[in-house]
Amino acid sequence: MELIQHNRCFDGEQRIYAFNSKVLNGEARFGIFLPPQALLGQACPTLFYLAGLTCTEDTFAIKAHAQRLAAQLGFILISPDTSPRGEHVAQGDSWDLGQGAGFYINATQAPWAEHYQMERFIVDELYELVSHNFPIHGHKIGIFGHSMGGHGALTLALKYPEKFKSVSAFAPICAPSQCPWGEKAFSHYLGADQAEWKKHDASALVLAKGALFKEILIDQGQQDQFYAQLNPALFQQACTQVGQHLTLREHAGYDHGYYFIQSFIDEHLQFHAVQLDT
Amino acid sequence: MELIQHNRCFDGEQRIYAFNSKVLNGEARFGIFLPPQALLGQACPTLFYLAGLTCTEDTFAIKAHAQRLAAQLGFILISPDTSPRGEHVAQGDSWDLGQGAGFYINATQAPWAEHYQMERFIVDELYELVSHNFPIHGHKIGIFGHSMGGHGALTLALKYPEKFKSVSAFAPICAPSQCPWGEKAFSHYLGADQAEWKKHDASALVLAKGALFKEILIDQGQQDQFYAQLNPALFQQACTQVGQHLTLREHAGYDHGYYFIQSFIDEHLQFHAVQLDT
Repeated sequence: MELIQHNRCFDGEQRIYAFNSKVLNGEARFGIFLPPQALLGQACPTLFYLAGLTCTEDTFAIKAHAQRLAAQLGFILISPDTSPRGEHVAQGDSWDLGQGAGFYINATQAPWAEHYQMERFIVDELYELVSHNFPIHGHKIGIFGHSMGGHGALTLALKYPEKFKSVSAFAPICAPSQCPWGEKAFSHYLGADQAEWKKHDASALVLAKGALFKEILIDQGQQDQFYAQLNPALFQQACTQVGQHLTLREHAGYDHGYYFIQSFIDEHLQFHAVQLDT
Repeated sequence: MELIQHNRCFDGEQRIYAFNSKVLNGEARFGIFLPPQALLGQACPTLFYLAGLTCTEDTFAIKAHAQRLAAQLGFILISPDTSPRGEHVAQGDSWDLGQGAGFYINATQAPWAEHYQMERFIVDELYELVSHNFPIHGHKIGIFGHSMGGHGALTLALKYPEKFKSVSAFAPICAPSQCPWGEKAFSHYLGADQAEWKKHDASALVLAKGALFKEILIDQGQQDQFYAQLNPALFQQACTQVGQHLTLREHAGYDHGYYFIQSFIDEHLQFHAVQLDT
């Protein structure tokens, strides 16, 4: 790991690291906020934050305004980049495919499969790397995210509940098999077989997995310019069907961006603190 | 005024406006946060925030993390761009001169004087524009800023104490007549006469004006990479000499950037709330 940037922040440190990822077959970057408790070596509850389309490893640190309360609650916050990067990595035809649009799945199709292995990257390689290098409380790890990263948070939590004990999302893509963003990404990364898509669709997954979490929290803006891509009602119906407790809050006037996220970020940290019993 | 962007944020609104500035002789932009109280039409205490070199009208809104507490305290926050802009506007040889580096003074020298009139822009044109268009409490207006904008906040407050009733700064350029950034900007914008420079130098101004404020707050990081440009000790000496109460806090480990600013932004808002008796 190479330390690329570090800034004192609320008596903790906001850092960016780069390392050579075997899984992504190239350099990978992630941001990490270490609260004061972590700098003292105390085992800290930890949240992975998965960002949305076009974002990078520093979007969350700059725009989500999470550090103030994370420092108080003693949360480590980890924010990986949203895809493999570099000239050697396949690029899409637009901002919703390819670099900046990894969708947190393992691609099986050419030319994507060589680098686009974001699911294994997050849940295996990065998870182990940070667990070995930072004072992470191994039983108090949660995950959250935004938009494409909300899809990532919900699906990775449902696939790996032993690794992520709490989950929440801001304006997540709740049913990627049934929206233009997801259909485009899944057809490129996974191929035409829609049965395969269902394994990476939060609304389908919760039907398959049942009620795994005491509670899931989703915040959604009613003025979200991408509302038609997100389908929170489908996820809500699926949760109801299997008895998964979901708190879905729709907020009048709020859109899809980080001014929305920062308005509710404290409540997400508090939610995870309760779920993880910190 | 043209509304360029607006986002719901903490039940208020973060906006960007553009308008045709007579003073700057071209289009000018500013950011404004309207807390919920302002949206209801209540007269709100208001802070002008002046940003540093290379920043624009949206830097503060994205990076300073001020909206949460501003919404609670009912503060309107106004963040102008840092210079005139456009292809018709003179540009410097580097990021510390010209566009993005207006230094909040009125240039007297060619080619700068035609557009670089940032002092009149802030204290006359923008001040009047926002006072007419938003529910600003006319007797509760303060000013703060960062680096070059900290210099701007201190000097404009000392020049116009009838307009700005409270003042604070993050890592301000405290004695621009005596540091490379200030010497370069002042020699270009104001010419070679250093007596003229003193009129725009916070440390010289406080000696000339005396104790105008009940208290001034400055936060400064000890790991600031630009510490040699800032000279807080000179401002402190000048304040002591004239009996101006100054709270100068030096913080171990903090650098010059917005991770430093966000760590102490709440305390600046609280300081202004007390000074303005909100």
